Amino acid sequence: MNNTLSQLADVLEQRKQQSADTSYVASLYTKGLDTILKKMGEEAAETIIAAKNGDKEQLVYEMADLWFHAMVLLAHQDLHPDDVLKELERRFGLSGLEEKAQRSK
Amino acid sequence: MNNTLSQLADVLEQRKQQSADTSYVASLYTKGLDTILKKMGEEAAETIIAAKNGDKEQLVYEMADLWFHAMVLLAHQDLHPDDVLKELERRFGLSGLEEKAQRSK
Amino acid sequence: MNNTLSQLADVLEQRKQQSADTSYVASLYTKGLDTILKKMGEEAAETIIAAKNGDKEQLVYEMADLWFHAMVLLAHQDLHPDDVLKELERRFGLSGLEEKAQRSK
Amino acid sequence: MNNTLSQLADVLEQRKQQSADTSYVASLYTKGLDTILKKMGEEAAETIIAAKNGDKEQLVYEMADLWFHAMVLLAHQDLHPDDVLKELERRFGLSGLEEKAQRSK
Repeated sequence: MNNTLSQLADVLEQRKQQSADTSYVASLYTKGLDTILKKMGEEAAETIIAAKNGDKEQLVYEMADLWFHAMVLLAHQDLHPDDVLKELERRFGLSGLEEKAQRSK
Repeated sequence: MNNTLSQLADVLEQRKQQSADTSYVASLYTKGLDTILKKMGEEAAETIIAAKNGDKEQLVYEMADLWFHAMVLLAHQDLHPDDVLKELERRFGLSGLEEKAQRSK
Repeated sequence: MNNTLSQLADVLEQRKQQSADTSYVASLYTKGLDTILKKMGEEAAETIIAAKNGDKEQLVYEMADLWFHAMVLLAHQDLHPDDVLKELERRFGLSGLEEKAQRSK
Repeated sequence: MNNTLSQLADVLEQRKQQSADTSYVASLYTKGLDTILKKMGEEAAETIIAAKNGDKEQLVYEMADLWFHAMVLLAHQDLHPDDVLKELERRFGLSGLEEKAQRSK
């Protein structure tokens, strides 16, 4: 069910109603696509640096930053993490979301 | 339960036993960390380009490439996507994996 | 006079007349902006990796790759390295190109 | 003679004697390699974004940022832009720095 990503997607959707003054995510939406993409590039670089440092804790932290900003990008483009997960399932013949769809019938 | 990412993590773990001749993932493990990180940088750039193209299908495709190589990096470093998801849950007060942990008691 | 960059800019300009079959640069022009930008992202990642490896020879090599593809990008956009150098001179109060302009009077 | 880059390299070398409180470059040296590399990744992303915006002025500005931070990285690693330019000359059979060396005899 990919609970965590779905819950995070819900949070990011709710942030669209909030003020840029009180929410970091809302401030990213307000600044717009280029700012979000700049953060993607920055977090990808920090992930690479953390991996080269051989510091697993730092790598998990930076990867979480990267995935978080990837999720913000998806939300900003009115996409959902399930869209990406379905593409991964299609490539690898995985059954996660299909199972979910069947269960929800 | 984050099924898709867990299933993909299982596939990536199994690839550690395969030959670099028959598996792209195994060939990435053999080439090593720098090759995997180079791919991370490349896929981050392609994600940015796809977003700027305003092409949602292309964005989902490139984001899947980015997440896939992020998963390969985690596997190569003996980390699991749950490590990243737990960090995201901690930051956002989400309950996904904790719920899972409770259910499995 | 920034000879090297000017000479390289001339070479890259000449490549616009060549076939994508015989010239790597011409093949980049033919593939277009997104391919050139993807290479920029890739080379930036490789520069970061080389620096983290503490290998100065590798760093010089990857930085040359990055500058080269940056020059290809400028040429593709009908810009010249002097445009970038003038911006650096403006920021830092340097006199290089202005001196050159005076000398050429 | 690649005047501008040489002059900028001199400025960046002088900044090694300055305080991080008064000089942005000195503050980058103090923060260290990972911070400089993070900036490289950020500026590469911004260069890609500017190019996709089709805004030549913005592209020149961001490329100047990228080259500047590349120069800071070289200085931090006790390398000189001539090292990179020599590598480019070697690849493309250019004569700039060799000519300079001959003239200075």
